[in-house]
Amino acid sequence: MSFNAHILTLYPAMFPGPLSHALAGRALERGDWVLKTHDIRASATDKHASVDDTPSGGGAGMVLRPDVLGWAIDAVEFDGPRLLMSPRGAPLTQSKVRELAEGPGALIVCGRFEGVDQRVIDGRDLEEVSVGDYILAGGEMAAFALLDAVIRLLPGVMGNRTSGDHESFETGLLEHPHYTRPAKWEGRTIPDVLTGGNHAAIERWRQEEALKLTRARRPDLLEREKLDKDVDSD
Amino acid sequence: MSFNAHILTLYPAMFPGPLSHALAGRALERGDWVLKTHDIRASATDKHASVDDTPSGGGAGMVLRPDVLGWAIDAVEFDGPRLLMSPRGAPLTQSKVRELAEGPGALIVCGRFEGVDQRVIDGRDLEEVSVGDYILAGGEMAAFALLDAVIRLLPGVMGNRTSGDHESFETGLLEHPHYTRPAKWEGRTIPDVLTGGNHAAIERWRQEEALKLTRARRPDLLEREKLDKDVDSD
Repeated sequence: MSFNAHILTLYPAMFPGPLSHALAGRALERGDWVLKTHDIRASATDKHASVDDTPSGGGAGMVLRPDVLGWAIDAVEFDGPRLLMSPRGAPLTQSKVRELAEGPGALIVCGRFEGVDQRVIDGRDLEEVSVGDYILAGGEMAAFALLDAVIRLLPGVMGNRTSGDHESFETGLLEHPHYTRPAKWEGRTIPDVLTGGNHAAIERWRQEEALKLTRARRPDLLEREKLDKDVDSD
Repeated sequence: MSFNAHILTLYPAMFPGPLSHALAGRALERGDWVLKTHDIRASATDKHASVDDTPSGGGAGMVLRPDVLGWAIDAVEFDGPRLLMSPRGAPLTQSKVRELAEGPGALIVCGRFEGVDQRVIDGRDLEEVSVGDYILAGGEMAAFALLDAVIRLLPGVMGNRTSGDHESFETGLLEHPHYTRPAKWEGRTIPDVLTGGNHAAIERWRQEEALKLTRARRPDLLEREKLDKDVDSD
């Protein structure tokens, strides 16, 4: 069964866009995933096809109307996770990506303007997901990132299945440095251990480098890992 | 002076893609930002136009060669930040986005494959930036997110400049809920305070809701804010 991506957006022409290239594009052609784009504006009912209005209580920007978005969601035939890409959401993690990849697909609402009326988030049980602690002009770029991350994990999409299991976050650590040919470049060489052929030593070096890098750049990941282990051992 | 985005990618046809629509697209047409896409493969020198090779020390996937990427970077005439979109990088924050928006632009390397040879990261002083704790098939989707976030902050891009200053992360908190017309939807009403016209009360309610939401969903943001304050008061 294919992974079904239902995108609700005011800019349907953005899709599939970059996802029609490379790994995701080939997977789309093969039918490993199916994209259905839904124009939120098609659910507007007034003569101006309005989808937004001014925020109650005043302030800058415009807010997506609950009735219009509610109708747009109800028009989609899909039984699975309903996501709203939003900086207020739970930060997307690799384990969430994996969970989505194992499911039937996702209905993804891409917000624009100042935000989305809270009542439709509550009334349609939208799960707010954030791709990072920064503000996008709209949820579309977040949807691209989320789909790109999910699609590569779908069965058959990555040629070599093991290329996914030792990467950053899958092990709880950032990934070790990589090297390839040429052996010498601008006076810089490849660490001897990697060309020595001792596989145990290579594995040990990679583990140590990954740990060193994580400690230097993302001590928060080690902290989180430790907390998880503490919970597991209870 | 326009913001110059130099994208180094193996998939130049992906660009501008979604960034040719909506706010970013209009800004591109106006010349508020300039996009130059550089095909990394154009710097390959062998007859197969190889850009990658197997990882030293073994393992799955392929690694981007340092010589090819080095030449590709050297061919770009640009004096400003050089970023490598990578899950091993420093997490992108709104303050980093703001810093980039105030600068001359960015040279953005989009990796593919297993990774990029460490020597070119060191030799060309690439700053690794991560858009989130998940693995993309390539850096292109990360570049879209980063550019979308930066472009909206460029002078003249957002119609109402104040629409940016009260958002999530700009205040250190997630944003309060939004409401708009209709006043009643599926039995759900707008909180009375927002329609009461007492602006001080509205501001207070929004602050409280933002704090409540942040405490519930992202206590890490409050912790970070507190640490920042502690440092400031030293």
